[in-house]
Amino acid sequence: MRTQVAIIGGGPAGLLLSHLLHLQGIDSVVLESRDRDYVEHRQRAGMLEQGTTDALRDSGVGERLDREGLVHHGLELRFGGAGHRIPLTGLTGRTVTVYAQTEIVKDLVARRLADGGDIRFEAEVVDLDASAPRVTYRGGGETRTLDCDYIAGCDGFHGVSRPAVPGLRTFSRDYPFAWLGILAGVRPSTEELIYASHDRGFALHSLRSPTVSRLYLQVPPDEDIAAWPDARIWDELAARFATGDGWKLHEGPVTDKAITPMRSFVAEPMRHDRLFLAGDAGHIVPPTGAKGLNLAVSDVIILARALTERYATGSETLLDGYSDACLRRVWRAEHFSYWMTTLLHVDPAATAFERRLQRAHLDYVASSEAAATSLAENYVGLPIE
Amino acid sequence: MRTQVAIIGGGPAGLLLSHLLHLQGIDSVVLESRDRDYVEHRQRAGMLEQGTTDALRDSGVGERLDREGLVHHGLELRFGGAGHRIPLTGLTGRTVTVYAQTEIVKDLVARRLADGGDIRFEAEVVDLDASAPRVTYRGGGETRTLDCDYIAGCDGFHGVSRPAVPGLRTFSRDYPFAWLGILAGVRPSTEELIYASHDRGFALHSLRSPTVSRLYLQVPPDEDIAAWPDARIWDELAARFATGDGWKLHEGPVTDKAITPMRSFVAEPMRHDRLFLAGDAGHIVPPTGAKGLNLAVSDVIILARALTERYATGSETLLDGYSDACLRRVWRAEHFSYWMTTLLHVDPAATAFERRLQRAHLDYVASSEAAATSLAENYVGLPIE
Repeated sequence: MRTQVAIIGGGPAGLLLSHLLHLQGIDSVVLESRDRDYVEHRQRAGMLEQGTTDALRDSGVGERLDREGLVHHGLELRFGGAGHRIPLTGLTGRTVTVYAQTEIVKDLVARRLADGGDIRFEAEVVDLDASAPRVTYRGGGETRTLDCDYIAGCDGFHGVSRPAVPGLRTFSRDYPFAWLGILAGVRPSTEELIYASHDRGFALHSLRSPTVSRLYLQVPPDEDIAAWPDARIWDELAARFATGDGWKLHEGPVTDKAITPMRSFVAEPMRHDRLFLAGDAGHIVPPTGAKGLNLAVSDVIILARALTERYATGSETLLDGYSDACLRRVWRAEHFSYWMTTLLHVDPAATAFERRLQRAHLDYVASSEAAATSLAENYVGLPIE
Repeated sequence: MRTQVAIIGGGPAGLLLSHLLHLQGIDSVVLESRDRDYVEHRQRAGMLEQGTTDALRDSGVGERLDREGLVHHGLELRFGGAGHRIPLTGLTGRTVTVYAQTEIVKDLVARRLADGGDIRFEAEVVDLDASAPRVTYRGGGETRTLDCDYIAGCDGFHGVSRPAVPGLRTFSRDYPFAWLGILAGVRPSTEELIYASHDRGFALHSLRSPTVSRLYLQVPPDEDIAAWPDARIWDELAARFATGDGWKLHEGPVTDKAITPMRSFVAEPMRHDRLFLAGDAGHIVPPTGAKGLNLAVSDVIILARALTERYATGSETLLDGYSDACLRRVWRAEHFSYWMTTLLHVDPAATAFERRLQRAHLDYVASSEAAATSLAENYVGLPIE
């Protein structure tokens, strides 16, 4: 069996790549180790840069996004008992949109299947050859081989693609804290996201819809979720979001609860022979800046362009530039994510001097248009080159 | 003997305060432990914010500054073998001026003496009472007591004033590097300052006049200056400033050579009873952002205003707000100085991830108007509230 591009991983990166290639008349097969129900329901990110919504809309998969996505024009930094709005759109002319990754996956799966796309669920890749090139996978009790021109490794941080790149150089940082995240069936207490920096730790009030709140608490990295019954979570959230003017947090039933570690990770290069890494397979950011999904999307936009050029003209110039083009954007997002994470979280090892610097930094971002613009332009996403 | 304000320290802070008070008809005595020749020749900072030059000019001591000061409209960040200009004036509408601290001291000493001011050189303070208030000092073989209404502690980091504040809370950071600085009798190789970040370490090309260059190299904190004969210094400077297009460093006779440790330090509060700390007595910044002298000037501007209000109206409102007003500005400058220091220096303990982040940060500052404006507005100095 044979296809032009074998895509390992049926998350948003792999599915979008398959869709973008299809629009250019390029065949692909998506190999996803999990079943369809799993990939359509796993809770992940939910804040889309304008470049991401533009890409979905321009490629014809933005209909439900336009109907259900919540466009945001600002966010709030909350510290010292007061809120400070960052007017994202006022400062940059751009917006961000709340629309869960899991919904994007549903939209893309539906669209690929409607277009006759080939997505193989429960297909576990057991071997890949970046030079032949060829992918071997197990599914439905059989082992099969898929020959191809190129392989896209869109299989996330724990996937098989990255280990197939020899001589990889990796860069990483593990943060001394994690996020305890909940989904709650309650009207959000805020229209815009609230990023709260508090002596007790960071908290984030996000949302998924007019009836579903998404909330996060900084906790120790090795925290046991059993230590956090719902009542304790709400108490802690209320303490960290408290303001001088009596702002109220709406409580409701917790429908999902999980602890996520915080990590920065980059692998260089993002290409080996005919294998191209995209998204979490190549890099991880802590979630503070909401960059993970958006980076995956920009990777596959760049990859789709390069493959389009290759099949249209025979030129491999863009493919040869793929890794460098992605990594420039990746490192910008890595720096921003690190910056926003350290700006807002309590590092248990921080000195008193560092805590004061952090507060001075927050005061500055809340009072300087230049500093706020810097945050805003990174948050809404820099243009894809 | 008695005066209204006893000023400990005859550096720029103490002298300017004495001058500003004199203009408001307030008497002061300046007690300086060194002799006049020493204070007029010690090499210190040389980059003045516009707020500093405005203050000197508006108070009538800007004549020589206007004649000899070199007004700068930009600076260069140099990394990756290329220069990136930050157009300070284009981004902020403000300028900075190269004029050595030692020249300001000469101008202020001359002006105070011409105005009949009382500066006592070689007067070593041996005791001070912030409540009486009273200062006891030794000079000319005698011990004398100066009674006063207020004491201004302008005697620097190693002075006697700060230890006289009980219950002080201090915040500090020692950096894992120092600056080896030289004065060289050679035409500067650049019209604007060059801040160079290089894998070998930071370097700064500054200047004092059209015929005197001021150059700095990052060295280990415990470095022996004997290890740095002039030829090695020039070689190292040339390596760190090297560009892809063959930029040339002018070499010349080294007339001064010293190693300065890099430290951040803040003491809170800056007041105890009738004693007010100003300048280095209260806080230290690493020299990267050129903030030390400028902070000392803003402290004494705020203190002179407060004392003026007190003598004009009897109100102590501004005196009561002195420490908080200064500390807001101090922490902003501490953050900026830390930020610019860590942006440009090689931390020997940095991980590979941190080194890449640093480069991504430099690329961002060099390419984003918002980020460059943030650097620029801090460098030229935020307005004195």
